[in-house]
Formats: sequence, structure tokens, C-alpha cells
Amino acid sequence: MVRYKATIAYDGTNFQGFQRQPNGRTVQEEIEKTLTRMNNGQAVQIHGSGRTDAGVHALGQVIHFDFDERPLEKMRFGLDTQTPEDIAVKQVEIVDEHFHARYLVREKTYQFRVDIGKPRSPFRRYYASYYPYPLDLMKIQQALPDLLGTHDFTSFCATGSSVEDKVRTIHQASMEVNEAGDELLFTFRGDGFLYKMIRIMVGTLLKIGNGRLPADSIPAIIAQKDRNAAGPTAHPEGLYLVRVAYE
Amino acid sequence: MVRYKATIAYDGTNFQGFQRQPNGRTVQEEIEKTLTRMNNGQAVQIHGSGRTDAGVHALGQVIHFDFDERPLEKMRFGLDTQTPEDIAVKQVEIVDEHFHARYLVREKTYQFRVDIGKPRSPFRRYYASYYPYPLDLMKIQQALPDLLGTHDFTSFCATGSSVEDKVRTIHQASMEVNEAGDELLFTFRGDGFLYKMIRIMVGTLLKIGNGRLPADSIPAIIAQKDRNAAGPTAHPEGLYLVRVAYE
Repeated sequence: MVRYKATIAYDGTNFQGFQRQPNGRTVQEEIEKTLTRMNNGQAVQIHGSGRTDAGVHALGQVIHFDFDERPLEKMRFGLDTQTPEDIAVKQVEIVDEHFHARYLVREKTYQFRVDIGKPRSPFRRYYASYYPYPLDLMKIQQALPDLLGTHDFTSFCATGSSVEDKVRTIHQASMEVNEAGDELLFTFRGDGFLYKMIRIMVGTLLKIGNGRLPADSIPAIIAQKDRNAAGPTAHPEGLYLVRVAYE
Repeated sequence: MVRYKATIAYDGTNFQGFQRQPNGRTVQEEIEKTLTRMNNGQAVQIHGSGRTDAGVHALGQVIHFDFDERPLEKMRFGLDTQTPEDIAVKQVEIVDEHFHARYLVREKTYQFRVDIGKPRSPFRRYYASYYPYPLDLMKIQQALPDLLGTHDFTSFCATGSSVEDKVRTIHQASMEVNEAGDELLFTFRGDGFLYKMIRIMVGTLLKIGNGRLPADSIPAIIAQKDRNAAGPTAHPEGLYLVRVAYE
């Protein structure tokens, strides 16, 4: 038995999120089913870098699991082609037996796509959130740097989260517009993110862009440590887990 | 009553093609249902520039229909928001009463996307055909110009087509590779295309790229006027009707 680290992509549209649960199809369940079949029916358990919610996508989620040693491309190809079409296995490596996909995360990168075209693109309806209201993009650009650095992000954490320490450090918070001018792409990179934190940050930034919150309101929202101070939670279909970096 | 010309986009994944048929959901049926509802239940019929097959997408299909006169943006917005999410109404114009979406077509542009990445992207599984085999792209570039000009394209027409005149003129036949190097984008522009013609051209070009047909074989395939001389029919999910131009 050796420990494998695998980088996977998935279209979250038809999943009830990453993490196995009693009801509903999940990414973890599909991959474990496939690995168990490849292991002659002996159960194999995987560990992800963290959960993603229903409808949320991944371009570079990382998992680890223990399995007998095989040539890497054979392992990658077997797992990729035997999992359903909405999961892709991009890379497989053999790692130190102490590697852990969740505990050793150093940094995560998420992106969030917002369709601002009129009409909404039918091709993006599951792959970008839609925002049809007026937006002053300069106000969003002005607000983004206020998210950088180390803060207690309680205001940007969904209520009901059991995590106690809500201090996180954000290294990158940026936004670009695509060439056609009909889509926004937000990028957030940090040492970790709280439950629904990216979606609440995007919902707040869109509220700023729409003029219903001042462009300089982020520091006060952070200081209040109250979820009600921030904007609404943006829809899950715009969110992508892009990269997970390890120590 | 005035005549409207509308430019629409649709994700073909969940349609049995454009044209109304006894069984299966179609684009024509959904739009006619919506227009009939907007017309207080009085039936409205639409005419498209041509049919598209099941799974084929459109970025710029054109339709016409007759309806009472309304402000254009009101008409566009009403039709766009009342049709299902996989249909978008991009533009609506009032045109001369003699305009006809099918009879007056001057030129059509199609694109065809081929995912050549390893693994196949889960996000492109309904939006690009997948080709995992070796490809010499130079051979495809060499073959493309042989499709240009006026020819009898019988070899590139699906058997069973009832069209008698199979002479068509192709003005553009090109291919580019995306920045990531994992997707091909073919573009074909011409005065009209036969049934499954683009998909057979792409299937033939991929066979050339894969080395199973010589790079200079297109003229001989055209000359044979035999569907069996050309390559296989590429899958519908890669095909997009991009633009329709009128006289």
C-alpha cells in the first residue's frame, strides 16, 4: 500500500457537493465506489482538501487515499475513465505516507464567475452566477484590496458554522472582465476560507458595485463580526475550487 | 401585425433538435409555446434559418414570425425571459413583410469544438466533441483549403438526405488551437451546408490528422461523390450554428 495524491476536476451541477452524505449523489461517493471496484470490492476511503457545496465546481480539488502501488498513468487513466463523465482525474502522484489532503493545506485558490450579459448565456447557466443589474466595476476594484490581509472574517461566514477560529489570511482578491465584456472573473487566494465565505464576499462586492453599499464599507463590515453586516450569499454555480497548495 | 426577425442562442443538450416533431422537446416548440402564450393563446408559428440536430448548439440561429407591433426591447425581454433557460433571445428587429429566415439566407457560419485534452474536461462534455487520439495538426491545416470553393459535396452529405442539388460554396474553412492547447476550434462559412456536412468534414479532417487518410485526400473524396469515401460523422455536441447572414 502506498499513499496517492490525486488532483481532480468536477462539474458540480449534478452533485450534492463533495462530501459523502446519506442522501444524494456526491463526488466522494462516486470516487470511493470506483476505487473500491478497482480494489476487488475492498472498501477504499478518500480524503479531500475540504468540502464543496452542491452546485460548486472544481478545477483542482485534491484528494488522498491508500492503494496498492501501480504505474501512475495507469492509475490515473483507470480512475479517470471509470468515474462518471462529470469527474476528471487530472494527475496522480505517490506521496509520503504522512501526506494529508486536508490537514496540510497551505493555500487555496477559488474563482467565481458572474455572467453580466443581456441576455444570460444559456451555456453559462450552470457555470456562472447571473447578475443583470447595473454595476460600477470601479467601485468593486476599489473595495477588493480591503479584503486582503489577516482578519476575523466572522461577518463573511455563514451562520451555523461550527468553526471557532474565524481568522483567515487573504493573499489575493482580484477581478477581471472577459474580452466580450459580459463576464466577471473573481479570484481569491488565501490560507483557508470559512463556510460560504467566497460566496458572501462576492455577494457583498456585487452589492457595492450596484451602489447599495459604499465602496469603502468592507473594513466596517469586517469590524462588526456579524453576518448581517455583509451582503447576500452569491449562487453556488459561479464558484470553482481552482488550486490547493501544500506545505 | 408586423414581421419580426429574432436572433437566438440555445444549448442543444436537452433538445431533440430545432425543428418541431411529434416526440421530444424542440427549440421551435418551446418558442412557439411562449409566443402563443404572449398572444393570448392564439397560435403563432416561427420559421428558422434551418434545422439543427439533437445536441447541436446555436449562438446565432435566426427565426422570423408575425406578431402585433411592440417596443423591440420589450418584445426581446418578454420572449427571452418566458422561454426556458436553455434558450436566449439576443436580438429582435422588425423587418420587411417579405423577409424569410430560410429562403433568403446568403451565408451561414458554423463552428465545431474538439476537446483534445487528457483527461476530457467535465465542463466540455456537452459542449465539445472529444478526440483522445494522436493528431498531426499540420496535416489538418494542409487539408482545410481543399474544402474551399464550389463543389458537389455528395461525399460529405449523410445518406438519406432528400436534397437534390448538392453543390455548395465554402468561403472559409479554418482551425485554431486554444491558448491551453487542449481544444480545437474549426470554423466553416459558406452559402449553405448539406445534412450533417460539417460533422462529416470534421470527422474526415480528424482522420487525416490521425494519419489514417492522406493530407491531400480531400479532392479525391469530393470527386468520388460517395459518402463512404469520407470519414466518420463527428459527434453533435461540438457543433454550433454561429451566424446567419441575409441578402
